[in-house]
Amino acid sequence: MKATRYEGNKTFSVIETEIENPKKGEVRIKVAYSGVCGTDVHIYHGMMDKRVAMPQTIGHEMSGTIDAVGAGVTGYAVGDKVVVRPLDDTKVKPSDKGFNHICEELNFIGIDSPGSMQQYWNVPAFTLHKLKENTDLKLAALIEPLSVATHDVRLSGLVAGETAVVLGGGPIGLLVAMVAKEVGAKVIISEVNPIRIAKAKELGFDAVSPIDVDLVEYVHGKTEGRKADVVFEVAGVQPALDVMTEVAGIRGRILMVAIHGEKKPIDLFKFFWKELKLIGARVYEKEDYEKSIALITANELPFEDMITDVQPLSNIQQVFENIDKNPDGLKVLMDCQL
Amino acid sequence: MKATRYEGNKTFSVIETEIENPKKGEVRIKVAYSGVCGTDVHIYHGMMDKRVAMPQTIGHEMSGTIDAVGAGVTGYAVGDKVVVRPLDDTKVKPSDKGFNHICEELNFIGIDSPGSMQQYWNVPAFTLHKLKENTDLKLAALIEPLSVATHDVRLSGLVAGETAVVLGGGPIGLLVAMVAKEVGAKVIISEVNPIRIAKAKELGFDAVSPIDVDLVEYVHGKTEGRKADVVFEVAGVQPALDVMTEVAGIRGRILMVAIHGEKKPIDLFKFFWKELKLIGARVYEKEDYEKSIALITANELPFEDMITDVQPLSNIQQVFENIDKNPDGLKVLMDCQL
Ligand SMILES: NC(=O)c1ccc[n+]([C@@H]2O[C@H](COP(=O)([O-])OP(=O)(O)OC[C@H]3O[C@@H](n4cnc5c(N)ncnc54)[C@H](O)[C@@H]3O)[C@@H](O)[C@H]2O)c1
Ligand SMILES: NC(=O)c1ccc[n+]([C@@H]2O[C@H](COP(=O)([O-])OP(=O)(O)OC[C@H]3O[C@@H](n4cnc5c(N)ncnc54)[C@H](O)[C@@H]3O)[C@@H](O)[C@H]2O)c1
Ligand SMILES: [Zn+2]
Ligand SMILES: [Zn+2]
Repeated sequence: MKATRYEGNKTFSVIETEIENPKKGEVRIKVAYSGVCGTDVHIYHGMMDKRVAMPQTIGHEMSGTIDAVGAGVTGYAVGDKVVVRPLDDTKVKPSDKGFNHICEELNFIGIDSPGSMQQYWNVPAFTLHKLKENTDLKLAALIEPLSVATHDVRLSGLVAGETAVVLGGGPIGLLVAMVAKEVGAKVIISEVNPIRIAKAKELGFDAVSPIDVDLVEYVHGKTEGRKADVVFEVAGVQPALDVMTEVAGIRGRILMVAIHGEKKPIDLFKFFWKELKLIGARVYEKEDYEKSIALITANELPFEDMITDVQPLSNIQQVFENIDKNPDGLKVLMDCQL
Repeated sequence: MKATRYEGNKTFSVIETEIENPKKGEVRIKVAYSGVCGTDVHIYHGMMDKRVAMPQTIGHEMSGTIDAVGAGVTGYAVGDKVVVRPLDDTKVKPSDKGFNHICEELNFIGIDSPGSMQQYWNVPAFTLHKLKENTDLKLAALIEPLSVATHDVRLSGLVAGETAVVLGGGPIGLLVAMVAKEVGAKVIISEVNPIRIAKAKELGFDAVSPIDVDLVEYVHGKTEGRKADVVFEVAGVQPALDVMTEVAGIRGRILMVAIHGEKKPIDLFKFFWKELKLIGARVYEKEDYEKSIALITANELPFEDMITDVQPLSNIQQVFENIDKNPDGLKVLMDCQL
């Protein structure tokens, strides 16, 4: 079988290796598609070399079919379409308070242990979610990032009629925007990249550039002064941190989805003054995956437009080099059988 | 009657003026006690000169009895013991979403309009809360700051069995600690002033200095690694902001009670990683006053120990000068009839 490995130094190798039998409690998946995540790009850039044991097969946004079932696994059969929730929480402790998805010793499969960018992949059965037979496996590869969005929207408590402002119209921001709209909220996307603004508009969103318009005035005008009930910070830059506390209305909730590696200046006075809430959000829980699977199965949102390229797995090196050259695309899928 | 006025330039005047009749919808209160708040000290320091229309009678932490009832006021009679919730929300708008206590055009009585540091005080009847006849009017002057604490604890969602870490053992921090303990939480106070640490211990609290002990280790040890379920930031300094994200456990809630005038560096990564929540809290709502009144009426918490001095109103200049010289005292009450 074909497998890819991150070797460090902006380099992937493609190797031929043995297909292995699933161990007790595991299944072997014939991987259909594996999406490239911002985290994978970080790894490629060497930003996570301390954490990633090289050489390492990465990848965690995938879909596939079960190819073999290990001892002791029930409820799954060869041929079942599945996705993996790549969180190994077997080291959970009482001090994690039952929040297994963010437990202190969480193992993120595809970063901390081998991932899906290979033809066949063995995973613990407890990570699986079964899909309906008629599920489109390309769309199913979006279930992982979509679950980030369903988690964020759920933790925000967003309800129909409220206004959500999404800062950043990248893949995660657009998925958050779709889920927020599906909830019945009025959605405004703030994005600086003109191609991504155009894309967001194509997808039916009210999207503006904070360089061209005063975002706070814009949202004020669209909400009769209420401003945002919920703000999603999915841009990961200081200007987004500066505007999030301004564009939020009284008792507004701000979801911190972006990952900020360093301490950043925050307007705490606004938190006091308007009784704002900042809510940290990381990955997803089981129910978020279930919600995402339902959304992908129903296929009523413009998910197909999120997939801007599909490439053979063996092109992995070129795919990552191209992403660096062109930041306009949204989700690139690797076809793991090619 | 006697009235005091902040004149700017660290100066209060004490004047003789006419007792005025309450207007329609108002009552006249014979003020018993008026506590000195940190905000009053800020005003004295000239930090709020842009906001305060000088000369201005300040003061908002008070107790008293009704002395006259204006036209149209029902439910109150001369002699009733009362406290004032000093929030004039008459300019509330729909965009305030029903959060009157933090409405955009809130008028804070005692800062934005005349306050309680005078012998008689006319206020709108809608600001009143009636007290039981046997209420101690000294303790009742604590109802306003205590309501900050009941509000903070309520917004935190703290429940029995959880661990609350209070950063800052000043008057507000100690009141927060008392209310948290009353809820049934385990409370740990972090304070740097040795006299205040001793006071906190006297009041029965587990109190430590973050200079002498590693607070995170300390809380870790006291909670079997769960760390704080709720952190109250009531110190208002960068070291408290640095430790709050460390000492909070998974899904911990951090209450931002302190007022930070400038943007401050915050560890947003920890918000993401542990799914922390930051909750801004400002003043109080009606139900927080009711809760505080019940606590003061029951008088089962060490409220008396909070009052470190009672001084005649006519000594106001000296009282503020002394507070500057000695930061160890907790609550100073002005006897407004002297
Ligand atoms: N919380 C989680 O579990 C989780 C999961 C996945 C991704 N993330 C994080 O979410 C963030 C977004 O992920 P992504 O893959 O969509 O990243 P991305 O970089 O593709 O998207 C960010 C977008 O923000 C835009 N932007 C830049 N400056 C802006 C500004 N001032 N105002 C508005 N928009 C601006 C960029 O043009 C870009 O389109 C990243 O920080 C990522 O690490 C978090
Ligand atoms: N949210 C509201 O509506 C509201 C209402 C009243 C007061 N406040 C704010 O609450 C805060 C506390 O008020 P207060 O009157 O008790 O003030 P205070 O200044 O008397 O108390 C702060 C305490 O923090 C201690 N401290 C300093 N550095 C510390 C550190 N590194 N670790 C632990 N403790 C430290 C100080 O020694 C002091 O005892 C202030 O910022 C005030 O503006 C907010
Ligand atoms: Zn991902
Ligand atoms: Zn006060």
